[in-house]
Amino acid sequence: MSILYPIQYEDFLRQALQEDLGDAGDITSAAVIPADFETEAFLLSRTDGRICGLDIALSTFKLLDPHIKTQLYCADGDDVTANQKLAVVQGNARSILSAERTALNILARLSGIASTTAQAVAQVKDCKAQVVCTRKTTPNLRKLEKYAVRIGGGKNHRFGLYDGVLIKDNHREIAGSIDLAVKRVRQSVGHMVKLEIEVDTLEQLDAALAAGVDLVLLDNMSIADLKQAVQRCQGRVITEASGGIDLKNILAVAQTGVDLISLGWLTHSAPALDVSLDVNL
Amino acid sequence: MSILYPIQYEDFLRQALQEDLGDAGDITSAAVIPADFETEAFLLSRTDGRICGLDIALSTFKLLDPHIKTQLYCADGDDVTANQKLAVVQGNARSILSAERTALNILARLSGIASTTAQAVAQVKDCKAQVVCTRKTTPNLRKLEKYAVRIGGGKNHRFGLYDGVLIKDNHREIAGSIDLAVKRVRQSVGHMVKLEIEVDTLEQLDAALAAGVDLVLLDNMSIADLKQAVQRCQGRVITEASGGIDLKNILAVAQTGVDLISLGWLTHSAPALDVSLDVNL
Amino acid sequence: MSILYPIQYEDFLRQALQEDLGDAGDITSAAVIPADFETEAFLLSRTDGRICGLDIALSTFKLLDPHIKTQLYCADGDDVTANQKLAVVQGNARSILSAERTALNILARLSGIASTTAQAVAQVKDCKAQVVCTRKTTPNLRKLEKYAVRIGGGKNHRFGLYDGVLIKDNHREIAGSIDLAVKRVRQSVGHMVKLEIEVDTLEQLDAALAAGVDLVLLDNMSIADLKQAVQRCQGRVITEASGGIDLKNILAVAQTGVDLISLGWLTHSAPALDVSLDVNL
Amino acid sequence: MSILYPIQYEDFLRQALQEDLGDAGDITSAAVIPADFETEAFLLSRTDGRICGLDIALSTFKLLDPHIKTQLYCADGDDVTANQKLAVVQGNARSILSAERTALNILARLSGIASTTAQAVAQVKDCKAQVVCTRKTTPNLRKLEKYAVRIGGGKNHRFGLYDGVLIKDNHREIAGSIDLAVKRVRQSVGHMVKLEIEVDTLEQLDAALAAGVDLVLLDNMSIADLKQAVQRCQGRVITEASGGIDLKNILAVAQTGVDLISLGWLTHSAPALDVSLDVNL
Amino acid sequence: MSILYPIQYEDFLRQALQEDLGDAGDITSAAVIPADFETEAFLLSRTDGRICGLDIALSTFKLLDPHIKTQLYCADGDDVTANQKLAVVQGNARSILSAERTALNILARLSGIASTTAQAVAQVKDCKAQVVCTRKTTPNLRKLEKYAVRIGGGKNHRFGLYDGVLIKDNHREIAGSIDLAVKRVRQSVGHMVKLEIEVDTLEQLDAALAAGVDLVLLDNMSIADLKQAVQRCQGRVITEASGGIDLKNILAVAQTGVDLISLGWLTHSAPALDVSLDVNL
Amino acid sequence: MSILYPIQYEDFLRQALQEDLGDAGDITSAAVIPADFETEAFLLSRTDGRICGLDIALSTFKLLDPHIKTQLYCADGDDVTANQKLAVVQGNARSILSAERTALNILARLSGIASTTAQAVAQVKDCKAQVVCTRKTTPNLRKLEKYAVRIGGGKNHRFGLYDGVLIKDNHREIAGSIDLAVKRVRQSVGHMVKLEIEVDTLEQLDAALAAGVDLVLLDNMSIADLKQAVQRCQGRVITEASGGIDLKNILAVAQTGVDLISLGWLTHSAPALDVSLDVNL
Repeated sequence: MSILYPIQYEDFLRQALQEDLGDAGDITSAAVIPADFETEAFLLSRTDGRICGLDIALSTFKLLDPHIKTQLYCADGDDVTANQKLAVVQGNARSILSAERTALNILARLSGIASTTAQAVAQVKDCKAQVVCTRKTTPNLRKLEKYAVRIGGGKNHRFGLYDGVLIKDNHREIAGSIDLAVKRVRQSVGHMVKLEIEVDTLEQLDAALAAGVDLVLLDNMSIADLKQAVQRCQGRVITEASGGIDLKNILAVAQTGVDLISLGWLTHSAPALDVSLDVNL
Repeated sequence: MSILYPIQYEDFLRQALQEDLGDAGDITSAAVIPADFETEAFLLSRTDGRICGLDIALSTFKLLDPHIKTQLYCADGDDVTANQKLAVVQGNARSILSAERTALNILARLSGIASTTAQAVAQVKDCKAQVVCTRKTTPNLRKLEKYAVRIGGGKNHRFGLYDGVLIKDNHREIAGSIDLAVKRVRQSVGHMVKLEIEVDTLEQLDAALAAGVDLVLLDNMSIADLKQAVQRCQGRVITEASGGIDLKNILAVAQTGVDLISLGWLTHSAPALDVSLDVNL
Repeated sequence: MSILYPIQYEDFLRQALQEDLGDAGDITSAAVIPADFETEAFLLSRTDGRICGLDIALSTFKLLDPHIKTQLYCADGDDVTANQKLAVVQGNARSILSAERTALNILARLSGIASTTAQAVAQVKDCKAQVVCTRKTTPNLRKLEKYAVRIGGGKNHRFGLYDGVLIKDNHREIAGSIDLAVKRVRQSVGHMVKLEIEVDTLEQLDAALAAGVDLVLLDNMSIADLKQAVQRCQGRVITEASGGIDLKNILAVAQTGVDLISLGWLTHSAPALDVSLDVNL
Repeated sequence: MSILYPIQYEDFLRQALQEDLGDAGDITSAAVIPADFETEAFLLSRTDGRICGLDIALSTFKLLDPHIKTQLYCADGDDVTANQKLAVVQGNARSILSAERTALNILARLSGIASTTAQAVAQVKDCKAQVVCTRKTTPNLRKLEKYAVRIGGGKNHRFGLYDGVLIKDNHREIAGSIDLAVKRVRQSVGHMVKLEIEVDTLEQLDAALAAGVDLVLLDNMSIADLKQAVQRCQGRVITEASGGIDLKNILAVAQTGVDLISLGWLTHSAPALDVSLDVNL
Repeated sequence: MSILYPIQYEDFLRQALQEDLGDAGDITSAAVIPADFETEAFLLSRTDGRICGLDIALSTFKLLDPHIKTQLYCADGDDVTANQKLAVVQGNARSILSAERTALNILARLSGIASTTAQAVAQVKDCKAQVVCTRKTTPNLRKLEKYAVRIGGGKNHRFGLYDGVLIKDNHREIAGSIDLAVKRVRQSVGHMVKLEIEVDTLEQLDAALAAGVDLVLLDNMSIADLKQAVQRCQGRVITEASGGIDLKNILAVAQTGVDLISLGWLTHSAPALDVSLDVNL
Repeated sequence: MSILYPIQYEDFLRQALQEDLGDAGDITSAAVIPADFETEAFLLSRTDGRICGLDIALSTFKLLDPHIKTQLYCADGDDVTANQKLAVVQGNARSILSAERTALNILARLSGIASTTAQAVAQVKDCKAQVVCTRKTTPNLRKLEKYAVRIGGGKNHRFGLYDGVLIKDNHREIAGSIDLAVKRVRQSVGHMVKLEIEVDTLEQLDAALAAGVDLVLLDNMSIADLKQAVQRCQGRVITEASGGIDLKNILAVAQTGVDLISLGWLTHSAPALDVSLDVNL
């Protein structure tokens, strides 16, 4: 699984640190804490969950103050329980407290997505279906949030408009027919690109299979229709279910035999994991 | 209420558009849709909620293609019902579909925060307590998310470490005493800066009142203690309740007479509002 | 075919204009040309070739001076002859001359790549083989240079390390076997990603076919081996020839029946097209 | 000769690395190569040439992964033969392969320019004429490409519109006369700035000499006219030949006695040097 | 007092270094100084003054060349005399001389502001009045210049439009009355924000006190009126004098009993401190 | 004289506007001024001076709000008297007041430099000597401040380390001799670059003249020595006086016959011009 290189997120963290520091800086710590006060602090989980972004969060401290030392007690992908120590941070107390909120915000968000994804994956663990995310991500955090989905046990769908074709309703209707839309894509895109089409009915599915596609997105279909759809595809194309799927009905969807289940809420509505930093005086 | 100038978010939107376009661009629309195809599309709500970020979302289309025209059917702060038309977008079909996801992602997120805030505010509408947000925001989206809280009827707490003093547990313990921490702040910060201190017990509250502060953050106190605390303050300082407050107990908290109720989940865990774009062929 | 949106290249052009202007600006034009002198100038080809980047080049003038008017006499993808007028630029003479070199540099480079690609494509026009580019592009110009390849009639291969798997010699050797490398990829990557493997011998080809891949990169094979390879693949996978292919032997390579011919020199060594700007006094 | 400081190109390299990594990263290496696999790899020349950009290329690896060690076997300016080891790179195998293409692209391009320049310089080694480059460089790579010309043994002409006056045809015609153009420049620019004027005929040359300039650009003149021009100048001004000069006729041009020969193709059309990276398993 | 973290100014310094290096670099040092020449150089004061920005200036050398070593002989806030050694810089001579001017420019400017502030503070040392700066700072240097004011012994007023309310003449007149302006602010801003209002007359002061504000800005008042104003306020609000105050009359202003004296010229017109770098051969 | 293109300063202005707005924005104007209130306001001089940066200042308003209209009453280079209207700004009152301080700060600074330069130039108006600036500019404002010097009637010296050679004491001493330093430069730099050398004594001057340079910087010489120096140069090289020159002794320096007088204080210590914005209700 692809891990992010620091070069891919350090500018994001520097910008976030400056968002919190502003021009006046951390006026509370500067006033209250002696300049040379050294301390250590623990990153802690406050509820159960799947950890993601721990390395990234720890690098936040080091970007603010290269003298800070950190040590991991767990790693991205680990399931933790409430009040578990995740890592320790040692160094200048002002620096640690100045970076605290930025580090926690990124850790809480990514762990929240990973934890939510892990819950969905757990529901379908006895089926072949894979849980996949969508492009419904926070603007400018996509690479981080897609990474959190992978850490949660899910797979990534397209990263953007650029790395795969997905013919949706609007495209199909403008093109006039499924057949025409697919033909135009085949003439246009390169040989490394896969072609998926969204279908809402079994009739559209038949047209898509006839036109020749790599994947079909079965959107908002009933369980019965999903079963039918999977049968008709006979393994010739990859099948993906989407629309109106939650933790209660995901198993039923998976049991239809679809290959993929895509869930927008993994990224757009996952609650943050509760994490905190405790100074150890 | 302070509205954002475009200069404050346009770079963010340009970056988000490029996150979705990548280097190859929108290969689906480029293949399927004729280059000069003009269309119109509606932004729609899919559930009830408070709208926020509509102007910002519409400017996303125009940043990609300055020839696109847009018209608002409602404004930030309006409460809408499911399937209500929010705005219309007219122009080149490729451009509209290429910007769609970025525009929806920002609208869904900000409206989600505004809607969640509005729910909290509604619970305490008969009390004097104001709902306020925290610094638990998505990294690099703080100004947008704090704006969404205002649109939801909440008030903003500090924007960062720079525009107010908040002496938390860790600061207090390093300083040695509440009195000493407050003294150091008074010597250090400027005359435009307010001083708040976090207290966990009534004894700490008494020390804070004696030291002289502008606000007290009553953290994780019972309803009974909150009532006591409000009484002891006698209006001399602003009182803020925080910790473990949800939609179920917020009214009880407000009824203790506190001035402010701060809620981290307004920004770190608000689910996105379901919004979509429908092309009108 | 995907066209670039201005948002994808305008910052690049602004940066290039400033590279040429520096801090002192265009000291020659400022000294010699009256401030309000209006003129018109033609962009001209000096040799035959395929035009690419004309819109981009013209936007360079407008980014420096929004009052400048431009008109196209041809479009990206047109084949032109020497001394043909490509476009006219009208407005302030200082602005036109200050932007001239930047505009010409981008037009010359992209048209050079398109022209070189068109020559390669012309050689194999009677075969099914498609000409494709590689990742051997100028750092930070990849999206522009890949666009020029498309304008030249070629297809794009991967845009980066992120949008397709290509198992090369080094990967295969570290993995230990073709079979193992392919298995690891299948477990790791998402369902939208295609898998290509580089093979140097027919034995490796057999192993790749057995492991199950989407494409095979036949590297530095003789014409005889390429023919054999195509036969063995029997249309089950896409075949790509690469290595040591030039304008002299490309037809022979294409006649082996391969699907794709990839050429690094389309982007790393294409000579610029000779273009100029003539003021019309 | 001025060497670039890392601060002058590291952002360029970071941007180029991210261009290749995208948001998903190097999915092949992440899938196939164990996370902790350490290796070493050699940078190799594949043909003869002049090396340029080796330090820059090696820093690409270190910007991606600071733990990588590198060692030079030659230096910028060295002439190498085919299959010569240029440097060794040691460290994490994923990191090395993820940075490989970006490092090679920059090395290949700069060495290509240096090699081409060295060829031109070699042709005129027995004359006093110096080979100089122009502003016909790749947008936003000018400082790197001008450095490569220096490494190739050439000299740099103006770096931009800002560091020297060059009155070209268009300026002269708008001004009305050579005399007037030169006068305006003398009144306008500072004392550190040299003044060059482009002349196409001997009559124009006489006017330029009369007006008083520091250099004359003898554009597209015949060998006979160049000789005449050099004679008329009598060493009072620096003479520069340009236009239609290639490796075949450059010696004849040099033998006219001109001081400088400027060649646009050193930067706009130099083919890349063939370089590669071989993992040493 | 809040100290700046390097993350808050390093990009500013890198940009400044590149402003001085341009694309050609330090052509003098590259030509004259052998590549490996090591040296040491002293930063010196040339006149008396208060030092500010010494750490920042020294980091300039290290950003250009991480091998450079530096040692402080004094610290920000120290008062120095002419020709005092402030710090020593050791390492590559080219690097030291290439960074010299940028380092000196930042040190001279910040020390100039600190020295000017210290002079103003010294004048009023026996009064309770504090010297404060304004928003009349050099664009994009505000955080640095406000830091210099703190080092000079002054206090900071608002850092921007965002961290405090200041109702000025123009606001008040548009609102129609002081009372209305204050009411609107109280409804709009959060609980961490203080409210100041500019008043030009004692009548306006009375209206402001009646409306309820946190501070009053007494603008361009006579000494007599200032005394009256202070009396009327009776310590209920913080009083600030501004307008037409210089080193000659500042003591008289302070003796009126005002809490704050704001001076635009601390930042917009402070002369640079004369500092230099001497190589020790 | 070279005028700046907007592309050269607009990003600087956008950044400065955001420095003042922060994340919360202009909370005073948002609270007090109705959202649609339109007004007009005048930019005024408060003292006599030379105006510079008026176009730049006015574009600040338009960058914040493109609907704002502006009209110039004077132009860069005009000498104004106290309380003269410089320009009018019309449009949304919130926008005008939000941009006011940023616009005034840039106008005040550039006009201050232009006014100071004009004073120096006026002193020597009857001599041939030109007033020139140095590299002692505010970091990252050099192009703006050098422009202000030109508007003040001065000339620019080098813009950076890149566009001219200046051999200073430190270079000379490391090289070992003037002759050696000059020789190394001649071998290294291109033909468009002028060579200046700093000399402190007449002996050094003789050595410089013997070595062959384009300009001599006569540093900290007495009036008598300056006269001697000018005589010895006999017009063969350009002479520049620097060091310890102020408005009182500048005429005496000019009367020695030097060509250039360079003054660091034009840019590092010029007091701001007092300018303001008055809303016209």
